[in-house]
This record gives sequence, structure tokens and C-alpha cells, in this order.
Amino acid sequence: MVPRRSLTIETEKATKTTYVVGTELMVNLNRCAPPQSRFFSIKCSPNVHYKVTPPSKDRNTSLYPLTPNSVLLITMDTVSETAFDSKLSVKYYGEKTEALEEAVLHLTAVEISLDVDADRDGVVEKNNPNKASWKWGPNGHGAVLLVNCDSETSYKKKVDSETDEISKVSDLQDMSKMILRTNGPSQLPEGYKLSMYISKTTSESVRIFRPRTNVPKDNVWKNKLLKLFLKDYPMVVGTDMLTQEVPYLGGKTELTFYVEGLRFPDKDFDGLITINLSLLEPSGKDFPETPIFTDKVIFHVSPWIMTPNTLKPVEVYVCSTKDNNSFLKSIKNLVEKNGYKLKICYEYMNRGDRWMQDELEFGYIDSPHHWFPVLLDSPRDGSLQDFPYESLLGPDFGYVTRHALSEEVSSLDSFGNLEVSPPVTVNGKSYPLGRIIIGVAFPTAKGGRNVTQVVQDFLWAQKVQEPIALFSDWLYVGHVDEFMSFVPAPDRKKFRLLLASPDAGYKVFKSLQNTGQGKAEMFPGMPEAITVNAILSDKKLQAENRYVQNCIDWNRDVLKKELGLDEEDIIDLPILFKLIEEEKKNPRAVAYFPDMVNMIVLGDQLGIPKPFGPQVKGRCALETEMCSLMEPLRLKCTFIDDFAPYHKLLGEVHCGSNVLREPSPFRWWNLEL
Amino acid sequence: MVPRRSLTIETEKATKTTYVVGTELMVNLNRCAPPQSRFFSIKCSPNVHYKVTPPSKDRNTSLYPLTPNSVLLITMDTVSETAFDSKLSVKYYGEKTEALEEAVLHLTAVEISLDVDADRDGVVEKNNPNKASWKWGPNGHGAVLLVNCDSETSYKKKVDSETDEISKVSDLQDMSKMILRTNGPSQLPEGYKLSMYISKTTSESVRIFRPRTNVPKDNVWKNKLLKLFLKDYPMVVGTDMLTQEVPYLGGKTELTFYVEGLRFPDKDFDGLITINLSLLEPSGKDFPETPIFTDKVIFHVSPWIMTPNTLKPVEVYVCSTKDNNSFLKSIKNLVEKNGYKLKICYEYMNRGDRWMQDELEFGYIDSPHHWFPVLLDSPRDGSLQDFPYESLLGPDFGYVTRHALSEEVSSLDSFGNLEVSPPVTVNGKSYPLGRIIIGVAFPTAKGGRNVTQVVQDFLWAQKVQEPIALFSDWLYVGHVDEFMSFVPAPDRKKFRLLLASPDAGYKVFKSLQNTGQGKAEMFPGMPEAITVNAILSDKKLQAENRYVQNCIDWNRDVLKKELGLDEEDIIDLPILFKLIEEEKKNPRAVAYFPDMVNMIVLGDQLGIPKPFGPQVKGRCALETEMCSLMEPLRLKCTFIDDFAPYHKLLGEVHCGSNVLREPSPFRWWNLEL
Repeated sequence: MVPRRSLTIETEKATKTTYVVGTELMVNLNRCAPPQSRFFSIKCSPNVHYKVTPPSKDRNTSLYPLTPNSVLLITMDTVSETAFDSKLSVKYYGEKTEALEEAVLHLTAVEISLDVDADRDGVVEKNNPNKASWKWGPNGHGAVLLVNCDSETSYKKKVDSETDEISKVSDLQDMSKMILRTNGPSQLPEGYKLSMYISKTTSESVRIFRPRTNVPKDNVWKNKLLKLFLKDYPMVVGTDMLTQEVPYLGGKTELTFYVEGLRFPDKDFDGLITINLSLLEPSGKDFPETPIFTDKVIFHVSPWIMTPNTLKPVEVYVCSTKDNNSFLKSIKNLVEKNGYKLKICYEYMNRGDRWMQDELEFGYIDSPHHWFPVLLDSPRDGSLQDFPYESLLGPDFGYVTRHALSEEVSSLDSFGNLEVSPPVTVNGKSYPLGRIIIGVAFPTAKGGRNVTQVVQDFLWAQKVQEPIALFSDWLYVGHVDEFMSFVPAPDRKKFRLLLASPDAGYKVFKSLQNTGQGKAEMFPGMPEAITVNAILSDKKLQAENRYVQNCIDWNRDVLKKELGLDEEDIIDLPILFKLIEEEKKNPRAVAYFPDMVNMIVLGDQLGIPKPFGPQVKGRCALETEMCSLMEPLRLKCTFIDDFAPYHKLLGEVHCGSNVLREPSPFRWWNLEL
Repeated sequence: MVPRRSLTIETEKATKTTYVVGTELMVNLNRCAPPQSRFFSIKCSPNVHYKVTPPSKDRNTSLYPLTPNSVLLITMDTVSETAFDSKLSVKYYGEKTEALEEAVLHLTAVEISLDVDADRDGVVEKNNPNKASWKWGPNGHGAVLLVNCDSETSYKKKVDSETDEISKVSDLQDMSKMILRTNGPSQLPEGYKLSMYISKTTSESVRIFRPRTNVPKDNVWKNKLLKLFLKDYPMVVGTDMLTQEVPYLGGKTELTFYVEGLRFPDKDFDGLITINLSLLEPSGKDFPETPIFTDKVIFHVSPWIMTPNTLKPVEVYVCSTKDNNSFLKSIKNLVEKNGYKLKICYEYMNRGDRWMQDELEFGYIDSPHHWFPVLLDSPRDGSLQDFPYESLLGPDFGYVTRHALSEEVSSLDSFGNLEVSPPVTVNGKSYPLGRIIIGVAFPTAKGGRNVTQVVQDFLWAQKVQEPIALFSDWLYVGHVDEFMSFVPAPDRKKFRLLLASPDAGYKVFKSLQNTGQGKAEMFPGMPEAITVNAILSDKKLQAENRYVQNCIDWNRDVLKKELGLDEEDIIDLPILFKLIEEEKKNPRAVAYFPDMVNMIVLGDQLGIPKPFGPQVKGRCALETEMCSLMEPLRLKCTFIDDFAPYHKLLGEVHCGSNVLREPSPFRWWNLEL
């Protein structure tokens, strides 16, 4: 629909206005008609076009009869060279053909278009008809904005969006371009202004900058002096600045703005941002200006997106501690022989906290013109708490966190309890970026532990990887990575869900007993050594594992339903648990031997906690079983001894590492939501 | 999709479980199979049904071959009479046909269904397949909930939802029924429980009660004594109570719950509420129970809905003050002769505050089983502030408010600045409940007045009457009812938009001058008297009204676009304004003579501020013009003298009154959103 503006003309004196090409001016011809008027006629400059309704002229006079609904629609298709260079006049007649009065209109035509990359191809096209609305999907539209959550400086750094200045030109790369295209006379007619504005709510989420245009060019010294005090990219609108005049440069010109996102979608922010540009008309001395034309554009802030195990690894992160030298060597070996990078967080930074998985989660943000990794810093805040900000935040490496009330934070807030599935399709609904998985208290349990509300709200608000809540509070540590993982596969859905399974564990041990290996020892040669027979005759352990299997089966049913999985998509890994009691009557589970599902997945290479199972023909029966399950998927198992530095502290390989991965080839705005 | 539960059976001892009719139990037959197993067979009670995959039996042995993916699906179609009265057994075989081991399963079948009125017909049907999701529209589904915002007691009253007790049985009418239908043995097997639960977030929005069921019947005196201390309707879940066991009554029974809404949709609440009911299974001594079946239902809280001028009036509210006796008489006359009720708010309550329109807005909430009016109390809080709560809140008369930071509240927060359009269709999109209209600062103006954010958030969150923001800050008082109103019409869209129009005003005065009435006086016989000629020669007044017309035209263009109106749907009323300055350079408009658009609309009767225009042939020329505009629409104009008690205090008839109307015949859940 063509934007239409009501305009009143007068017979007392000429009316002056500015017309924006592409709109219509609508004049109610009765408003200023002298009371005795019966007819009217219209004359105008050749570049002015008009339409009269009702359109038929009087046969005798060749004049238009004036009716109660007589309306004049005015358009122009070329811009003015000087102010008010075009004219239109309406002459009113009574019964006779001499004119009673005349209303004259002086017009200046300009082109104004606020433009964004609404078709998401990385280029700011001109006046996209869909620029003011957001539509998801490959046939959708609407421009994309990044939260400027990286830091251009590495020294004395701060998240860029937390300062309202642009200190480095490189920072402009993290912003979305918005172009004001104008065409018309060298100056707007006197008193007219262009004004950009945003709502108060929007100003919490966006800042807009533009290059400085108004430095005087006539005095070199003055210019140099000014440069010391003037910013190269002043803020136009943003925090505490909802509206500001923007320059009209004259002729056919483009003025580029840089739009900076300040916050991620959240419970109270749907991610959409509207920016307005108006042409203001003077209403006469002492009166405020009124807007006569408004152009709008919309942006959607990129959600924070997690990367599943099936995406290509880039860099592996692990801590160096006093006691994990041999573990570190094994990891280094696995990572480097496969061509990935390794980053070690040293003692001065980790202060003894080895749980690299738990302090942060890697993800990314994406737009048609730019993307970068963004870490979500956990509210866990162990001794590793400075690492994400101090060591990772930097140019094109973003940082976001959510602060919980400290009394709310529990072990479930560690990000071993935050995972993401590979792409799935569930009952015809597709999740090409996968689905986020967190572990919470059993819904029916009173007073269980939970992921803190602010983190849950954040995750759900990202929308593009709709989360699934599993039940992990049955575990002492309480992380989903203690009983599940995903590995790539060549067939079916291109992945398998791995689940810890006490039943599968008992099956291995019974099979050993049945084939005469009952005296073989779990933890061979270690102080914990125990025979297969002894394990199988421990009724308490068996009852505990029955309970654990029930808990995992509950999660299995949820995962099958929410990820659309068949039994054939799931592999049960032989893992036993035992229960320990923090307080009386609150028994929770920990792994009985190193928890093989808590692995690191690097392409087709799996770094698996070495289980120290019973030796059969010189080989660990649990490793044999594990390999026989993984190798048909063309996955290679490397067993890593994490017993002393991780397992005994209730974590394993996955808990002690983290993997930065490449972003998904699927772009989030192509989702059909 | 049939809910499916993973179940593990054992060969060591019989497995006992409870089965819910309508689900499937899925047994992975490999899990408990002895290591040498090659085949298996199945036997079961006649009421147990099973399916084996892969389904083909071995030709020689007539046994099922055990494959890595062998799965057993179990269903039952009749409920058990006693605990574990049904059985199924799996026998495992090796190469030969003697059984190696047997796994036995004891089953109890029950029916469990948590039911709501998901088809919105006022009756709680059984197990509606759509009960767990919300869909808008006439073919939609999902139950409806009311915020229990009325007060059953009139003395020492409190909004019902603010107490967590039910003090009167009548209060149950304001809640939605939810029925737990169960069928099965007289008791659940030992250790099984039914548990209802809600999420922490949901607990801010809902409370659920049930009738007391567990009073002992054997002792009359004990019973009577208990009644004194036990509540008849204890709370099941709600604030600070996320989960609670609910009784299983045995046999085929229904237990009715009463669901109470606590809060309206808002910026951080989409109005949806999920309630869960689980069957919990004991996991053995010392272990927590695990849920083995979960039923879910969803409710949508009714939004607060406003009533446009085109709906039938029920009761008119007006204040009695020391100086408005004759005004009161005129209103009483207009209201009562047309058969509507009049409620006068007396001086002891209004304390001199006469602006009945501004302190509150009438609306209603609606569900298939019940509806009642709900007033939105303005954050304005003038001397009338106690009236809404003290005089209106009561049985089936609800109350809701939003508290702003006091420094935020401006004159724009008065509800003369909050109106609603009649039903409209805009570019094919239908708004059968109309659209809310508020007035705000001009978007481009710095530091203008605005409707306080909490009220804006509330209005936008109701969704069913998507608001339109107009520009009203150009007015000194700043209310949209100073320049617009809606009246019913027999044709076109069934209504007209009335707009104040200085152009139409000048046209009347010029016409008078042209026909020789230039010396006729505005405000005849009053101290303010002034001739038509003098008005027309006041260039300052003319410039001010040109500015005012520009401001109204801006709103006109917005209303045309957002309500899908044509020129023919709008009537311009002859009204002049003048500007007054609060501070230097901040001129704002007030009505020059009583502002006729600020009228009360009661069916086809219009109560219009008497304009005191120039007398022509013994009749006010402005009244004549007004009647000639309204009478073709079959509307009757009554001109009410509000000059001294309202107009001079910068308000008129509409500002000084309020109308409670019947709800729309359109039910909000039938909207296609």
C-alpha cells in the first residue's frame, strides 16, 4: 500500500510542503473551498500528477463538480532541483464560470529511503518493500543484527557493547550497515529536518553510529584540532538518546549508519528491533515540527547458537593442573595427531579448577555479513571463573553471561549439564540446528536442584534450538553428560545417541561369568580391585543400578519423543553407577568405574575415559565391548586414563575438556518458526 | 502418538509395574536375556496384548529368534480389578528348546486422564487429544482460565486471587473445572502415587484447589471438630507448592479440581499455563519414586478486553460535585429515559475529582463457562483513586491495576487517553474485538509525555485488541478523547470515526460570515462572547488551528491505515482549539469552545457538550451543523451544558463520565492470531 498523507490547502495564502517520491498526498477539496463553491479546476507543473475522485467533469463547464467527498491525489515521479520548484493550484467556482478563489500548493519532491539488508545476502539493497517486517524461513525477509559482544581490544578490555563509543574502526565489522539514501535539491527547504528515532524499549537493545560528516573543510588547523575532540563515529540514537537529527547531504547521496546490537533475545525481548526515520516539516514559528513521512526498518538480533558434537572441531581446551600431566599428554596426542588445535589453561589462571566443560559453553552468532564464536559463561563461577573473560574474550570472540542470585546456583548450573543434539526432524518438524538439552530436577520432586531460572530463560528465548529438559538431579553431580552423548554416524540420522546403561553393564559382567571369567578383576592391580563374581553378587549395587536404569530410561523416553529417535538410533554403553548419600535419604548416583559416555568427540575420533575393566585375553572387556559398538560407525576409540585426576573427583574426560567447533552451515534465519 | 515407556524386565525376580490404558510398554528383550540366548517365547493373561519386532518366528522351533533389536510392545485394554492381576512372561532359549531362564512381569492396568474443557463448550470432556496444546481460532482448542480478580466478599474485601484460600463456595464459579478421571482397582498397588505438579514460573500464575476427600466418616463428632480446622477446598498446587500427591479414589471415579488464574498476560507472561499429573512408581526402599506416566493439560488465561462505543451500554457512571447539579440532571435524564442504569459517585468518595473517565477503564474477561466485567485502574490516582476498589470491586466485578514509578505518571496515563475501536478488518486481517487506541508523545519528539511503560506493556500483552499508538501529546491535557470518538452507523463498517476538525470549524464560521452573520456571537450572552468576524480575523488563532489540524491529520492518516478506514468512514466535526503555554516554547492545545467530539455514546443517543455557538434563527449554528452530520446516521443529539463544571476545567462530557457495556458477542479464543 502506498503511504498516503492528508494535506490541507488554503485559499488565503500558498501552502508549501515537501513530497516524498513513492507516496501520495491526499487533499480533501471541501476543506478550504469557499462556502459557495460548486465546481473546481486544477492546474499543475508538468512533473506533478494528480487524480480527482469522483473523476467525472461537468459536461457544460468542463469543470469538476465539488461533492462532499471530492478528493485530490497528488504524486510526483522526479525529484526537485530547487526548493518548491513545482506547483499545483485549485480554482474554485460558484454557479458561474469566474473563479471565486484559488488555493496554491508549492511542492519540493525528494527521495528518502532508509535501507537494510532485508534479503539477507550481505548487501544493503535499495528500498526493499519488506524491510519493515520480519519473516522466518528461506523465503523470509528482515535484516540481521549481531550483539557486539566481542572486544576489539585485548588489553584493558571490555565487551564492546558495554561502551557507547567506537574506539577502533574494526569494530564496525561487528555491526550491520544501514544506508540512508536521499535524492533531491542540494538542501532541504528551510525548516525541514530528517530525524532518526527508536522507542525507549528498543534503546536498551541497540545503538546506531554514523561517520562524522560535519567537520569544516576550510581550515586545516582547525580541522586537526577538532579531530582531537570529536569522535569519528558519533552515536546517533541508543542508550539515553531516542531521537536525533541526521544530515541531509543534498543531491543523490548515501549516508551509511552502523547498527550495534546490545542484548540477546531473552524472556522479555523477542529479538526484534525497529528503527524509524522521519522527515519533519516546520509547523510555523513557536510550533513543534510534525513528521510528514516515516520510513521503518526491522532487525532481528542473532540468537546464541550451540554447536553439536557432529560439527567439525577447531580447538580443544583443557586445564593443566599439578596432577594431570599424563592425562594432558594423552589429550594433546589425540588432538594434535588429528590436526586440531589445543589450548591449555594453566594453573595461574585455573587455580586448580580442572572442569573446563563446566565453566563455559561455546556457541556463535551469525549474520549474512559476519559471524563469530560467542561463549556463554556459566553462573557456576568456580576457580576457573576468570578464564572465559580474561583469556577468551577478544576480537571476534564474544562473551555473554547471565547472573543468578548466588543462593540459586547449584551443581546443575555447570555446563556439563548443557548440551545440544545434532540436527533432527520430529514428527515433520525440523530442527536443523538441533535442540538444546539441559538437566533439571524430576518434575514431581519437591526441592530438587535445577538450572537457575535466568539461564533457562536465556536458553528458551534463543528459540532456534528449542530446549529439552531432562532429569539429571538423580546424579550426585547432576550433569546430563554423565549419562548421554552424541557421536557422528555414516547412516540413518547421521548420528547416534549414546546412553549409559547399567543393564548393558551387567550383561557384559554376566557374560564374563558365564564364560568362566568370574574371577577376572575390575580395576586390575589397583587398590579398588574387585572380581566380576563379587560385583554380580552385590545385591545392593544391583538395586541401585535398577533405580539408575529407571532414571535413564525416563530420559531415554523423553529423548526418543523430543528428538524423534528410534531404538536403532540409540546405543547403550556398559556403565555401572553407585549411589552415595549427601544427606540421609537423599541418595544420588556417581559412576562406579570411569564413565565411558563422558567422552570427547573430535570428528571420528573418540577420547573415552579408560574404564579399567576385567582383562580377558590381555584386553579390557569393557574396552572391547565399547570398540565393538563404535567401530561399525567408523569411529576410532582412544581410551584415556583419567582415573586419578578426574574420575576420583567425580568427573571424566568430557567434564575436563571443551571443544570450539565450526558453525553450522545452516543459517538460523532460514528456520521456519 | 501413543506414549511409550521403556521397561526393563529381569530374570532374577518378577518385575511389577502399573500400566496406564492407552500407552505402550516397550521392553528391549536383549537387556535381560541370558548371554547364551538365541530364541524366546511369550505367554500372557488374556487381557494383555503384545507385539514383537521383528515379528517373524523361527520355522523349526516356532520361537522368536532373539536379534540385537528384538523389542516387545505391551498393551492392555481393560483395567485391573486387583493389583497385579495380569501377567506376561518371556522365556529365553539357547540353541536347544529347553528354557534357559524366564522373566515374569506382573501388571496392574489403570485408566488415568486429567481433563479440561479443551473444546471450549463449557463441559469438561473426557481425554480430549488436544488438551495439551493451545490453538487460536474457531477450529482451535485449549481450555480457558479466568484471573480470579473479583471479590466474593463486599465487606473487608480483597481481590480473590490475592488470598490462597477459598472462603466462599461461590468463588468456585470464577475458576475453571479440571477433572481427574481414574478407573482401576479400589487402591493403587502399594507405593504408587498420583502427583500433580507445575513449574516454578507457572506457580506465579495459577492455584489449584480440590474438595476435601479425606475426612473420616465413622465418627460424627470427630468429623464436626475437624471441619472447624480443615479447609473444605485445600490448595493442591500453587504459590510455594509446586507438587502434591492427589488421591486415587478407586473404581471408576472423577475428582474435580478448581483452577484459579492469578495474573493477566504481560510482557513476561504469554498467558499459557501447563498442569501436569503423573503416576509415580516406587523404585525400591530408599530410592525416590519415578514418574511412569504423565498427563498434561493447558490453559490460556483470558486477556482483559475493552468494550467499544458500539456495544450496548449497561450502566453510566458520573460524579456528583458541589458545582455540577444541572449537568448531573441532564445526564440522569439522558441515561434513564433510554433505560440504562446510572451510578453516581458522591463527594465523600470522589473528594472533588470529577474525571470519572480518567480514573478507570471498564473491560471484561471471558471463558466458555463464565465471564464478568473487570476494571483497569489507572496509575493516575487522583482524588477518585479509592472509588474503583472501594465501590466497584465485588462479586463478579473484577479489578486489575498496574503500578508505575510515581515520577513516571503523566496526564497521558489518564484513561481518557485509552479507547478502543469497533470491530475492523485491515488488509484482510480481522479484529473482531476492535483495536485499543492510546495517545503518546510524537515519536520524534524529545522528552514528550507518554503512557507509562507498565500500562503499555499490559495493553500490548493482551494481544486480542492489538493497540495503536496515536499522537496526543500536542494537547495540553493529552487525551485521545479530545479529538476522536466512534459512533454506531447503520451502513458501511457499522460505525463512523468522528474527528475534531479546525478546518471544518472555520468552514462553519466562514459560511456564517458569507451569509451576513459575521456579527453573530460565539458564547452569546456570556462574558467570553466574541463575534464570528473577530474569530475569523484572529491570525494567531488561525495559525494555531493550522498546527492543530496538522496534528489531527497525522492521527487521521494513522487511523486510516491501522483501522483500514476510507474517507467516507470519517466525519469531521467543527471544533476549534487554542494553544496555551505551560512553559515557554511548549505550547499545547485546549478546546476553544466545548469540544463536541468528547461525547458520551449510548446506543443511538449522543450526549454532546453544548458548544455555545453563534445563534442563527434562534438556533446554535454549531449544534445545527452537528445534528446535520449525525442525524443521517439515525443518531440523536442531546447537547449538555458542561461549560462551568467541566469545559472550564479542560474536560467535557466524556471526560466526566464512564460507561459499563455488555461484552462483545465475539469470543476472544475464536480469534485467528
